[in-house]
Amino acid sequence: MYPSNFESLIDLFEKLPGVGNKSAQRYAFALLEKDSETIDEIVETIKKVKNIRRCRICGFLSDEDECLFCKDTTRNRSQIMVVAYAQDVVAIEKTGSYKGVYHVLNGLVSSSKGVFPEDINIDSLLKRINEETKEVIIATSPTMDGEMTALYLDKILKDKGVLVTRLAHGLPMGSSLDYADDLTLIKAMDNRRKITDE
Amino acid sequence: MYPSNFESLIDLFEKLPGVGNKSAQRYAFALLEKDSETIDEIVETIKKVKNIRRCRICGFLSDEDECLFCKDTTRNRSQIMVVAYAQDVVAIEKTGSYKGVYHVLNGLVSSSKGVFPEDINIDSLLKRINEETKEVIIATSPTMDGEMTALYLDKILKDKGVLVTRLAHGLPMGSSLDYADDLTLIKAMDNRRKITDE
Repeated sequence: MYPSNFESLIDLFEKLPGVGNKSAQRYAFALLEKDSETIDEIVETIKKVKNIRRCRICGFLSDEDECLFCKDTTRNRSQIMVVAYAQDVVAIEKTGSYKGVYHVLNGLVSSSKGVFPEDINIDSLLKRINEETKEVIIATSPTMDGEMTALYLDKILKDKGVLVTRLAHGLPMGSSLDYADDLTLIKAMDNRRKITDE
Repeated sequence: MYPSNFESLIDLFEKLPGVGNKSAQRYAFALLEKDSETIDEIVETIKKVKNIRRCRICGFLSDEDECLFCKDTTRNRSQIMVVAYAQDVVAIEKTGSYKGVYHVLNGLVSSSKGVFPEDINIDSLLKRINEETKEVIIATSPTMDGEMTALYLDKILKDKGVLVTRLAHGLPMGSSLDYADDLTLIKAMDNRRKITDE
């Protein structure tokens, strides 16, 4: 019932992940309110997505050949943290507690989705491991696919002479023990630690 | 931490109504997956928003001077349904039960938001009412602003010699009476009707 140009705009927004028809309409009406110059600015911003590349070394997003982490000579190159997605890098960086470099798999090995090791950024990880590399920290999410990917990486990295570690699983800080699911509780018990290390 | 072109894209999405940072990131990553041609198509679709106008007569959206309802000679021009937004026209049309024409106020009189009658599309409503017009149906939402707008329109339309009606308020079909709020129940009791009209 809307004019075709407006229907096309709604269709466009509806293709975004998790956006239904009602939200798509709201977004389209929001754009309709913008003046001509703002539309031009929006269009320019979207066009520039073409300039965004994957870092040649680690696979994180970059405007250039290498990302800001790989270019940064103050980062500790002996530690490589392996994450599934670029978003995970940002989550880790926000903590301010990690000074090593990253490797973005851009996916996870998944039997249910039919994703094999060769489909994700694993080859480039193997290639960049050298005598400088001391530790590979596997920071995939503790989901089925994340665990499977971690096990696979552990297997192929073992004979590379590097320490392979995995982020700890356990009770999230500030949570209530009686709200934790069984698997998390079991992990938390299995991985229990001395309160003070000798 | 993302490259600046990508941050700009996230900012863009965050300006859409009801979109937070997490969703904006998801949308930006979805765009990143698109190939160059798809980006060009998206850009063209957005540019065309500039061609969308308001119908000269009723204020509904249109690619041309007049919208499809105002151009349609089979619609009953003696009935004008007044709605707040273009979305409301689509909601009414979907019922398939209305054959008159529309008038889109493009807003509501609101004391809390400081919107006065001259700020919305009321002048053009008064101008289009002529001897052909028999009934003006006020179909604003039963909210504070919708009610205030309805009362205002009723007042100024009274001496125009047209019948001014308002959509009925009452229990929504299929709802449970004990879940209805007090105001709705009071309206439903006040507006009670004979089950069979004589």
